[in-house]
Amino acid sequence: MCPSAITLTVTREEHHFMVDTHNNSYPLYSCWEAWPDLGMRRIYTTVLFTHIYVAPLALIVVMYARIALKLFNNGRRCLAEDARGRYISPFHDIPIYADGTENVFNMVVEVPRWTNAKMEIATKDPLNPIKQDVKKGKLRYVANVFPHKGYIWNYGAIPQTWEDPGHKDENTGCCGDNDPIDVCEIGSKVCSRGEVIKVKVLGTLALIDEGETDWKIIAINTEDPEAGSYNDISDVRRLKPGYLEATVDWFRRYKVPDGKPENQFAFNGEFKGKDFALSVIKSTHEHWKALIAKKTDGGEINCTNLTVSDSPFCCSQECAKATVDAAPPCKAANAIPPEVDKWFYYQQN
Amino acid sequence: MCPSAITLTVTREEHHFMVDTHNNSYPLYSCWEAWPDLGMRRIYTTVLFTHIYVAPLALIVVMYARIALKLFNNGRRCLAEDARGRYISPFHDIPIYADGTENVFNMVVEVPRWTNAKMEIATKDPLNPIKQDVKKGKLRYVANVFPHKGYIWNYGAIPQTWEDPGHKDENTGCCGDNDPIDVCEIGSKVCSRGEVIKVKVLGTLALIDEGETDWKIIAINTEDPEAGSYNDISDVRRLKPGYLEATVDWFRRYKVPDGKPENQFAFNGEFKGKDFALSVIKSTHEHWKALIAKKTDGGEINCTNLTVSDSPFCCSQECAKATVDAAPPCKAANAIPPEVDKWFYYQQN
Repeated sequence: MCPSAITLTVTREEHHFMVDTHNNSYPLYSCWEAWPDLGMRRIYTTVLFTHIYVAPLALIVVMYARIALKLFNNGRRCLAEDARGRYISPFHDIPIYADGTENVFNMVVEVPRWTNAKMEIATKDPLNPIKQDVKKGKLRYVANVFPHKGYIWNYGAIPQTWEDPGHKDENTGCCGDNDPIDVCEIGSKVCSRGEVIKVKVLGTLALIDEGETDWKIIAINTEDPEAGSYNDISDVRRLKPGYLEATVDWFRRYKVPDGKPENQFAFNGEFKGKDFALSVIKSTHEHWKALIAKKTDGGEINCTNLTVSDSPFCCSQECAKATVDAAPPCKAANAIPPEVDKWFYYQQN
Repeated sequence: MCPSAITLTVTREEHHFMVDTHNNSYPLYSCWEAWPDLGMRRIYTTVLFTHIYVAPLALIVVMYARIALKLFNNGRRCLAEDARGRYISPFHDIPIYADGTENVFNMVVEVPRWTNAKMEIATKDPLNPIKQDVKKGKLRYVANVFPHKGYIWNYGAIPQTWEDPGHKDENTGCCGDNDPIDVCEIGSKVCSRGEVIKVKVLGTLALIDEGETDWKIIAINTEDPEAGSYNDISDVRRLKPGYLEATVDWFRRYKVPDGKPENQFAFNGEFKGKDFALSVIKSTHEHWKALIAKKTDGGEINCTNLTVSDSPFCCSQECAKATVDAAPPCKAANAIPPEVDKWFYYQQN
């Protein structure tokens, strides 16, 4: 308020007087802020108003807006969006092939290495968000079976593939598990949940999980510094000794802590190489094509998509947005319960 | 500003007139805020001032104060305090024995299970805070040697013990490593850094780390639900199959990724049982007693303590506070660099 005090001026009005009813006259004084330039007064008032009112108010508004935005974004993170922020289905709308080449695929990361939460593409929900599996009303975590801690690879799925439960696999004699094909990514980076990475396929393991065929594709992130050295399953055996054995052991026993029997494998638990794996992926891609074109009945599978133009399930961005808006808002992530940290020990046969 | 506008009143001054130099007279008007009660005006002004100036300002001040406080508190967390908030040394002031019994010890957790940061009691710093080891100017993280992820137990030390580098161990033929004795706690809970837990001693492994004796005590948290089943090293072998073998394997190879040779063990890598372990701990406790009483020269070891009353290094809470205040304030924790996530694979012999 300093400028106000400095410019405050009192002058006697030379040509005006005050007169009362008894005809006594008094000098008339005027009091004003004598700004050298009237424009300055306007500037001063504006500065004052800005500092004591507009600035703090704006700061508070911005602060709360950012908090609100943050909460809102967190809540929505389980749904997939493409690079332009449009909703997509990670199951149907991410292309299976990442490059023109036949050997590099997209992979949607569902479970980062060394974590336990069993997150997966929810095939039966509209737009197939990545959700944590729920069993008997409880969020599902995979137990730590010694010596393993959580999942021992970045685990996820190849989009636009489907293991058809109505199709008996000629190799395993079992039907598909009704999910996109699973991938174990063996690169050194720990990926993030929901990340879409490019992977080079190296081989596959034929897990029989509770009587269903559940192919596990072994692949490596093309951005791994050592990706160039990996071209087939034999490279994994040679360069990461023990990893394939650990992989079989992991899948064999991962459900034992939940009271289930050990899982079985086709081919006596042996890994098949790259060419075999590629043919398996291609076959599941064909099954997905039939599914999305409504040539196969997918049952409860939700085929809503935004980019497969010849699919009867293809819908517009507006309809996708309406679906998302109708869904209950997501809540913040739960803390991981301490019992998830338990390590289970079994005598190995 | 509404009340101001409502109460704005213009009245003609009945007994005063304005007269100019040509003797023309004009009526004189007064303009004021006609508050029914003058007290109200004061209240109104106060309310206005509070809302547009004091409230936002106070909010901002409180906000920044909280942020500053939070940063400040985080920075101090590396120093140990007892239950009454007084500074202590975790090396010298936490009693070795937790109960009256001879078999239950206190353990200071330095590294929680499955983490990599090599945190340890800084024996050469005043009050011995738990600090991350630094090698060649870089914070030290233990590499992941497949199939292990980080440390495979809660790792820490028994207070009031010291592996005297001037004393040649009769079992190993090597001198001590100049640190308190290390503990691998095998309970199912993942402990927190700096936590002090009670452990039941079960056995020990005699690691020879770069030519120094480095006893590793195997123990279990007395609060573990299964602690009652563990009374000696044989119980670990029986109830947690593979864990002891993994422990030897871990210590043998944990420095190999840093370009060092495999570590060696006394007794051909065999574990010794509870009684042997107890005698080792007792011996290191005796060495600590000599150290803290200045009967042995501890070299650079900082023996400042607050509770060992017959120690020449015993100092007051005020002197401890002065030490802490003189230390540079700690900064917020660094993010773990992604290269720490790399998994190293070696052919096992």
